[in-house]
Amino acid sequence: MVQQYSLTLPAYSRGFHLISHHVAQALDKLPDTGMINIFLHHTSAALLINENADPSVRIDLDSSYDHLVPERMPFYTHTMEGDDDMPAHVKSALTGVSLTVPIQSGRMALGTWQGIFLAEFRDRGGRRRLTLTVYGE
Amino acid sequence: MVQQYSLTLPAYSRGFHLISHHVAQALDKLPDTGMINIFLHHTSAALLINENADPSVRIDLDSSYDHLVPERMPFYTHTMEGDDDMPAHVKSALTGVSLTVPIQSGRMALGTWQGIFLAEFRDRGGRRRLTLTVYGE
Amino acid sequence: MVQQYSLTLPAYSRGFHLISHHVAQALDKLPDTGMINIFLHHTSAALLINENADPSVRIDLDSSYDHLVPERMPFYTHTMEGDDDMPAHVKSALTGVSLTVPIQSGRMALGTWQGIFLAEFRDRGGRRRLTLTVYGE
Repeated sequence: MVQQYSLTLPAYSRGFHLISHHVAQALDKLPDTGMINIFLHHTSAALLINENADPSVRIDLDSSYDHLVPERMPFYTHTMEGDDDMPAHVKSALTGVSLTVPIQSGRMALGTWQGIFLAEFRDRGGRRRLTLTVYGE
Repeated sequence: MVQQYSLTLPAYSRGFHLISHHVAQALDKLPDTGMINIFLHHTSAALLINENADPSVRIDLDSSYDHLVPERMPFYTHTMEGDDDMPAHVKSALTGVSLTVPIQSGRMALGTWQGIFLAEFRDRGGRRRLTLTVYGE
Repeated sequence: MVQQYSLTLPAYSRGFHLISHHVAQALDKLPDTGMINIFLHHTSAALLINENADPSVRIDLDSSYDHLVPERMPFYTHTMEGDDDMPAHVKSALTGVSLTVPIQSGRMALGTWQGIFLAEFRDRGGRRRLTLTVYGE
């Protein structure tokens, strides 16, 4: 059995945003056992799983990514869409846009401290579109 | 229903290469709804999804990865296979070798600006081998 | 057909550890063709596929990650759980906690030089818990 859902997120500011609740709300009844793939249809943002409790982790993830992939590097040639654009593509490449999570007892089997995050790497990325694909029985 | 395909890519030079068309050509008729996993059987290259339109993005991805993981770092001990080898393993670890993409209406549901890339991190990586696994109904 | 397994690893020291054999031992008979998702329920460690033969690669992966995401960066605000904690979250975000591997002829179709690794980013991370989800026919 395959189920598929579309999800359009609210527009987020640049940074790391917990979206587990948006994903859960977009889903109907899940199969008892299986997996869900969460796919982001964009190339300047990313999906990841990280610590869901302390907001300071999200702030430091953001600072760490900015430190790792700075704006205005002298070797950038793709500069027409703003200083935040090329670093956003690099951060997205490093992090990924597709997550697969197991389903157990009819729910996403995330660890106690795990949340699903959208990393918005653009200053004004707008509303981001996801496809959720569920397989199970 | 599961379908599985082997795909051997042409040998690419070091850098980021759009391979969406190679993947699409390797597939028979896809199920209407489902997902496809694209898996690379190597440890010094990677698979990623990024912007498919402007070739300057690929050039800057390459420069950014070289800046992030330089050759000849004093702490490298795995140096027998050439200066490009150990950085290639690190870049592959950061980027990943397995991509899952949703299938919608019988085709891979990539975003408008999304393409599938092989990141070839070796100077002469040769022909890289992929397995494509499709599930759907 | 979906099968799901729990796997709790032994406690590992900080570093990169080959766990392919632990994963293989946790599985019953696999389907002939399909895929397996390997999911780590933690946010300060990661799963990856990399070179399984030469232990010097693992040592250099560890040094490279430490170089890329250093401890005690002045901008860290999440510092209560020790110097190793915030870098562990960043490294986990960059590497990922979910791997999907194809199944061919009843076994995981890893490349000759590919092994599955747990990257333990904490000094004392303890025993890490995985869920393995198999789909195939």
